[in-house]
Amino acid sequence: MSETTTRRRARSGGGAARRAERGAVSFETARFITRNIPDLEVMNAEAMEIIEQNADTVLEEIGVGFVNNPGALERWKQAGADVRGERVHIPRGLARQLCATAPSRFTQHARNPERSVEIGGRNLVLAPVYGPPFVRDAAGGRRYATMEDFRKFVKLGYMSKWLHHSGGTVCEPTDVAVNKRHLDMLHAHMTLSDKPFMGSVTDPSRARDSVEMCEILFGREFVQQNTVMTSLININSPLTFDDVMMGALEVYAAANQACIISPFIVGGAMAPVSVAGTLTQVLAEVLAGIAYSQLVRPGAPVIMGAFVSSIDMNSGAPTFGTPEASLVTYGAGQLARRLGLPFRSAGSFCGSKLPDAQAAYETANSLNMGLLSGVNFMLHACGWLEGGLVASFEKFVMDADQLGVLHRLAEGISVSDDAQAMDAIREVGPGGHYLGCAHTQAHFKTAFWKSDLLDYKPFETWEEEGARDTQALAAAKVEKMLATYQQPLLDPGIAGALEEYVTGKKAAEPDAFL
Amino acid sequence: MSETTTRRRARSGGGAARRAERGAVSFETARFITRNIPDLEVMNAEAMEIIEQNADTVLEEIGVGFVNNPGALERWKQAGADVRGERVHIPRGLARQLCATAPSRFTQHARNPERSVEIGGRNLVLAPVYGPPFVRDAAGGRRYATMEDFRKFVKLGYMSKWLHHSGGTVCEPTDVAVNKRHLDMLHAHMTLSDKPFMGSVTDPSRARDSVEMCEILFGREFVQQNTVMTSLININSPLTFDDVMMGALEVYAAANQACIISPFIVGGAMAPVSVAGTLTQVLAEVLAGIAYSQLVRPGAPVIMGAFVSSIDMNSGAPTFGTPEASLVTYGAGQLARRLGLPFRSAGSFCGSKLPDAQAAYETANSLNMGLLSGVNFMLHACGWLEGGLVASFEKFVMDADQLGVLHRLAEGISVSDDAQAMDAIREVGPGGHYLGCAHTQAHFKTAFWKSDLLDYKPFETWEEEGARDTQALAAAKVEKMLATYQQPLLDPGIAGALEEYVTGKKAAEPDAFL
Repeated sequence: MSETTTRRRARSGGGAARRAERGAVSFETARFITRNIPDLEVMNAEAMEIIEQNADTVLEEIGVGFVNNPGALERWKQAGADVRGERVHIPRGLARQLCATAPSRFTQHARNPERSVEIGGRNLVLAPVYGPPFVRDAAGGRRYATMEDFRKFVKLGYMSKWLHHSGGTVCEPTDVAVNKRHLDMLHAHMTLSDKPFMGSVTDPSRARDSVEMCEILFGREFVQQNTVMTSLININSPLTFDDVMMGALEVYAAANQACIISPFIVGGAMAPVSVAGTLTQVLAEVLAGIAYSQLVRPGAPVIMGAFVSSIDMNSGAPTFGTPEASLVTYGAGQLARRLGLPFRSAGSFCGSKLPDAQAAYETANSLNMGLLSGVNFMLHACGWLEGGLVASFEKFVMDADQLGVLHRLAEGISVSDDAQAMDAIREVGPGGHYLGCAHTQAHFKTAFWKSDLLDYKPFETWEEEGARDTQALAAAKVEKMLATYQQPLLDPGIAGALEEYVTGKKAAEPDAFL
Repeated sequence: MSETTTRRRARSGGGAARRAERGAVSFETARFITRNIPDLEVMNAEAMEIIEQNADTVLEEIGVGFVNNPGALERWKQAGADVRGERVHIPRGLARQLCATAPSRFTQHARNPERSVEIGGRNLVLAPVYGPPFVRDAAGGRRYATMEDFRKFVKLGYMSKWLHHSGGTVCEPTDVAVNKRHLDMLHAHMTLSDKPFMGSVTDPSRARDSVEMCEILFGREFVQQNTVMTSLININSPLTFDDVMMGALEVYAAANQACIISPFIVGGAMAPVSVAGTLTQVLAEVLAGIAYSQLVRPGAPVIMGAFVSSIDMNSGAPTFGTPEASLVTYGAGQLARRLGLPFRSAGSFCGSKLPDAQAAYETANSLNMGLLSGVNFMLHACGWLEGGLVASFEKFVMDADQLGVLHRLAEGISVSDDAQAMDAIREVGPGGHYLGCAHTQAHFKTAFWKSDLLDYKPFETWEEEGARDTQALAAAKVEKMLATYQQPLLDPGIAGALEEYVTGKKAAEPDAFL
């Protein structure tokens, strides 16, 4: 970290910046979670071996499609795969062997070095919702997302204590041209927050723009030597790797930037209806995708992803917070650990249209499972609503508050002399109470995790204050946060250069809306 | 089970009963959960040994209070404890040694043998909320509970597929005299449901009434030989055993009926603010309580309980679904397994005043933890609201629906040939979809757990139907369930005898309201 600190000090420059720094408000962010509790291992070794064998059979016998991508087919041929048309048949064991060069953990640097994150090992990094075309809030209802909504979410994420990462497409800014919105989104992440963020994947050229903007923000040399973006590469399940996603992957891997390589599965539609069948396909897909990343650049940082929902067979709607999705995630976590790779899954998933009890049950099911399945990078950790169609302002702060539960749970149980509290038990004795004893006095401020949102008041007080439900409490909190937001400092030279880059890029080509 | 079936057949008697049976509606109830997934072990062996050593130190050095109970003090003296006044100092290892005669699992019989439950081992039995003086529903708001409310909850419990047990005081029927309400409550459980239930513990005489009513329902000989009630004996934490609760325990243990022996802890008030300190006290308390049950009758069935909440140190309010309570429960589960005893904890705990998102986050945190901490008997598994002050009709059905998630999750991952689904993956191949394939067609009806309550509809349909939140959906479901309720059959002779017993008991003494 010292190298980073030095770099920043050297660049922060003049007296104006120093003066601004003295006046700046800093919002507290928790360090990423390091688990001191075990993972839940739902499968035994025999079950895992069956699935690993089957995944190898899928890769060899059925193969995977690399579509519109002659370069990829050529790379696979060179690596020893049997390429027939656009179908790549990968001999048993080859994909796993290629995956071995991927690092088991890596640092994603933030422009504020205190906010850099370690992805892998016993760690869990939390990032907000990604991708919704709609937003919802209590006052305005459901509507298409705009760039102004996007900026609000970045601000909320920056101010959220338990959120370690600014994310990527926290909502789709539908009022900006498709071929230019990535510029505005990256600019927002870089200037409105100092947490780590994700790059654009919707076109290889946009991935290149993302790298170039990072070179302005971090310095070219720093970006060449360090990972500063973790971007989301979805696989077209089943077993298909399209040229757009692979094109973005190629840009990022070549630049040593991290990719989450992630099957996107609605169970029963994009994968078999059984958990073991889904796990087999997930493993085959990530083996092929991660192996490919290592063909592009051995050692490129990657995360094994698994986005899994189940399906309501009546309506065809994806369903969330369900037990089958949890079982797949627990199993996928075990498979990731056997591969020695960082793992991405889970999130604030729900199918509900409102931030109501359904949303919260489903979300809590998924968040708890995410912690216990060994997830290292949790995208969508807050703000997800309506099957991912909607980013909800209220749910963003509701979920972000619940992420505090995961932090504390992950700490596990201390049995230090002080935590054993034998003196307290002696002091109080049968029939007494602990409220005033010395041990309680010494620890009461930090002994219990405390929500910054939920209602703990007596019934009468709560009723007098308007009998507000969680959504109403959250709406008030969103309003207050946005009203008190203060932008993190950024070197004026860098801010100007980013501005110039975005303006120049936007002027260079006409708007596209497809 | 065959002995039970024979007994019932022999007693079901005349043609009227047989005719009624042919016309009866049967509501489906899932078998109690048997876990096919492991427990989450948050403490290592060293930590557990520290806590066990400390608990023994507490019992020997500090001791426990048995208040107003000379008989108990005499029993402890006989067993080798050092009794000073009302304080019982238990030599190291003695309590654990006495606990060894308690069975590691037992059957609680229901009057419908198909609804009998096995408590202990890898099993999880789910029972509804216990104790709230208030009820709430969307239409009527919050109000004191009545016997009519009680009956409605028993009906809902009877009709709830994922609930295995009818519970006990699902709400306090405040319109019936304190010294008589147990008669009406037991009568409701016995006649409106055929699931297993709990007995009264508010006075030893009421425990005796409970046993006598069971003798009418099951036959005296059957009750002498079998466990037909599991009742809740709270310890006055810290370290105090009062005469009322111990009096009820003595009645039940002597009659071979099961007791949950359970510390009742608001962390920081009735136990130290640290998790390890709380675990130490919990273990000391249950060791003393369970040892005492075995002094009353060696082999009496018991459950090691742990009711634990954390506290908001600002308001003093207990808080629920919090990480510290989860850690205590995970740890207590481990200690229970080392004792070889069934374990009771967790539930639909929440502090929220409404069945909103707060309620659901907190509840889901607790339900998930309950499954993974190895709980064998989960009281309060549905319907709990506002820190247990309120039984909510809507939340009852909301939580009861979520209990289905636990059933499926507990099944774990099958790797049968069929579940491996290799033929499906071969059939569909890269770029296809699984909706129509043979494997999906064969399994789609049962492949995914499906809520009977939550909304999975397209946004437009949901909006047209009134944009209902979960509470509104639940209110409609409560109404529908109560409208379609049908009473389970009961031998008219038994029904008459129960009626007569309740009427006679009520007439024998004046109403008391304290």
